[in-house]
Amino acid sequence: MSTLPGLLPGLLTDHDSRDAVATDRSGHRPVTLPDGVVRARDVQDVVETLRWASAHRTPVVTRGGGSGLAAGASASAGEVVLDLSGMDRILDLRPQDQVAVVEPGVITSHLDAAAAEHGLFYAPDPASAAISTIGGNIATNAGGLRCAKYGVTREAVLGLDLVLADGRRVSTGRQTVKGVAGYDLTGLVVGSEGTLAVVVGATLRLRPKPLETATLAAHFDDVVAAASAAAAITAARLQPAVLELVDAVTLEAVDAARGSALRSLGAAALVVQCDGRGARADIDAVAEVVASFATSWRATSDPVEAEELLAARRAGLPALEATGDVFIEDVAVPRSRLAAAVSGIQAISARTGVRIATIAHAGDGNLHPIVVVERGGTVTEGPAWEAACAVFDLALELGGTLTGEHGVGLLKRTWLARELGEDSLGLQRGIKAVFDPLGILNPGKGI
Amino acid sequence: MSTLPGLLPGLLTDHDSRDAVATDRSGHRPVTLPDGVVRARDVQDVVETLRWASAHRTPVVTRGGGSGLAAGASASAGEVVLDLSGMDRILDLRPQDQVAVVEPGVITSHLDAAAAEHGLFYAPDPASAAISTIGGNIATNAGGLRCAKYGVTREAVLGLDLVLADGRRVSTGRQTVKGVAGYDLTGLVVGSEGTLAVVVGATLRLRPKPLETATLAAHFDDVVAAASAAAAITAARLQPAVLELVDAVTLEAVDAARGSALRSLGAAALVVQCDGRGARADIDAVAEVVASFATSWRATSDPVEAEELLAARRAGLPALEATGDVFIEDVAVPRSRLAAAVSGIQAISARTGVRIATIAHAGDGNLHPIVVVERGGTVTEGPAWEAACAVFDLALELGGTLTGEHGVGLLKRTWLARELGEDSLGLQRGIKAVFDPLGILNPGKGI
Repeated sequence: MSTLPGLLPGLLTDHDSRDAVATDRSGHRPVTLPDGVVRARDVQDVVETLRWASAHRTPVVTRGGGSGLAAGASASAGEVVLDLSGMDRILDLRPQDQVAVVEPGVITSHLDAAAAEHGLFYAPDPASAAISTIGGNIATNAGGLRCAKYGVTREAVLGLDLVLADGRRVSTGRQTVKGVAGYDLTGLVVGSEGTLAVVVGATLRLRPKPLETATLAAHFDDVVAAASAAAAITAARLQPAVLELVDAVTLEAVDAARGSALRSLGAAALVVQCDGRGARADIDAVAEVVASFATSWRATSDPVEAEELLAARRAGLPALEATGDVFIEDVAVPRSRLAAAVSGIQAISARTGVRIATIAHAGDGNLHPIVVVERGGTVTEGPAWEAACAVFDLALELGGTLTGEHGVGLLKRTWLARELGEDSLGLQRGIKAVFDPLGILNPGKGI
Repeated sequence: MSTLPGLLPGLLTDHDSRDAVATDRSGHRPVTLPDGVVRARDVQDVVETLRWASAHRTPVVTRGGGSGLAAGASASAGEVVLDLSGMDRILDLRPQDQVAVVEPGVITSHLDAAAAEHGLFYAPDPASAAISTIGGNIATNAGGLRCAKYGVTREAVLGLDLVLADGRRVSTGRQTVKGVAGYDLTGLVVGSEGTLAVVVGATLRLRPKPLETATLAAHFDDVVAAASAAAAITAARLQPAVLELVDAVTLEAVDAARGSALRSLGAAALVVQCDGRGARADIDAVAEVVASFATSWRATSDPVEAEELLAARRAGLPALEATGDVFIEDVAVPRSRLAAAVSGIQAISARTGVRIATIAHAGDGNLHPIVVVERGGTVTEGPAWEAACAVFDLALELGGTLTGEHGVGLLKRTWLARELGEDSLGLQRGIKAVFDPLGILNPGKGI
């Protein structure tokens, strides 16, 4: 394209290539398209792209699977997209060290499957694991269903290989489980949404696959009872690997999509999974706690039956997406405020008339209120966005955060100063300037 | 003191007060004493000290329990010590959220004891837990015996209250389990050894106390067999909460101190503890793995007997300290290189004639080679230091790090560039300048 001076090898500028990388799954639609896209095959492609971008002061938006939910990888005119989805090799997997070294384009579930061959697993499991990349998981510090017990992406990343904005390569972190030499640049880059450096390699921690699992599904008269039961499980000092809450709006959508009758069992459900030796005894203890809140519950140690119980949770988002366009929020609150959060969200929906379903990682207080509008409707402005903003408000009032695991991206940026305060933001902008003095890495996102 | 212009309230300048805060437990002895010490009682004291220090360009060395092992809190002429050990209140402990909010001077074991009243525990357990402070643990990203399973201090810190070098107050992180709004300033400050900001408050994650524990001690003909057994436990995908290795030199010192006969059972020992429901079944599985390597082993589910088995590990350092002056190293290697590391350390000791004992957190590949010299001898220069440097060399050759959990401090600083590289150090210096443009916070330490 004439707007891109000099030679950038492998740059694609045709409309379809640019259209394919203009946004993510957030519902945000940029008005213009990026100027071009480089599909990197190796680190050298990344180095050359960034050298070129630095020389020409051209903003670069790095992209993995495009499964982001905060418009963190959306790109517009004047910007070049750096697509790392083709750098998808698992370079090394050392079962003895329980470590994997991967390129950023590796699909999350592929790594998990490779680890499983050695009796290991990769703990972070965003709902998008089948389509999201490790690089994207690192960019957003992705979470998932198993985080309450196993931590988020940050806890799984031991070290990173980076290309800086000017094309220099830097390694952070280590190959060892522990290490405190120097500041934690690894942790700083995890969750930085492509604004500090481009991740071209990661050393990841794997964990032993649990020997057993046991699973329980429980149904409740209302969502506040379900949230209270979740809080009571935590208060009883039980530590499920999975503790998911699903509300009535979601259950109705799942029933419509799958022909099930979950809604008839109650207006909210919890799905709980314990793992490790003693999983069955743990789930029995969970059942004892849940019994005082639930209308009915069912527990199983059979993996096939367990998948059936988990289906209500897993089918939730696709079922809602089948009913319209969605914006998936990602607020988190202290665990004891979960019931207050879900009833607050219901009140916002009632007051605004906007349809909001709620799925929550109840074990760590991370809620995904899902704003649903008619197909082709707008979720990032108008009444739907106002309802979404009321939910942000609610989360901050309850001592929570705007985003537990999806990132700030473009969409939550205006809210960030209120959560962080100007002095903290000032430090963050200073750090950004240290890594990216020209401001070419994903400008306008994250911080 | 005449060298301290202006009014700094509460400044102590008498010789004894200054002498008491001049160094830590690293073995490093500064040639001069700091100019004075402020014993802060509250956040306002910290704010005023830093405002004063900024105005007068006076370096400030923040200090907790003085239990550091890398001279990170040592202070000399021209510097003022800010002693936070008096800010020792647990401000809030919310069992429902499994969260505690504390001042930095809280003794680590006191927090653990307070959590225990609610059936919870504070996971990081440095060997110094009875004398170290939470603030010091945060400064060094302290580890301990339980880290292989429960993570280090960084994993336990949800949010921080900071005073910046210019006296401004900033909060980082969150009250929630998850949160990704903005860069991870919390993780950046953890392990920064007092060089970025002064921690005046911390929101910490507590965990449910395990229902059961089971413990095993095993003895081996040589330390390489013990290290191989430790690697085999990991490779068998077992996850002990404690997996400690003790070598012959340490066993001899323990026997001398306690009148035991552990050395007669073998030239190395492993102490293993599993916890949670199924702990006994787990320790039986550990025993099965260990059996092919060990000359003898003993397992128990009785807590009193377990403490006896752990005593060989816990008594190791005090027993060695009774035989001379020590420098405690802190290298970490990939878990599969543990045997290579311990045999390499033995070779260094044989070659140099310097006595080196080794205790290791074998579960995460973190070794503490302990250089022992005659009482009153020098560990930070001469042959002892050369032997210590050979161990640093060895760790880096094995793909490891200089420091797993003690920090860089003053003593390992010259080695840092070799581990990190100049580009990484450049970024770190840039970050330092963002937080502390005048360079008054613990200059010459950490990075």
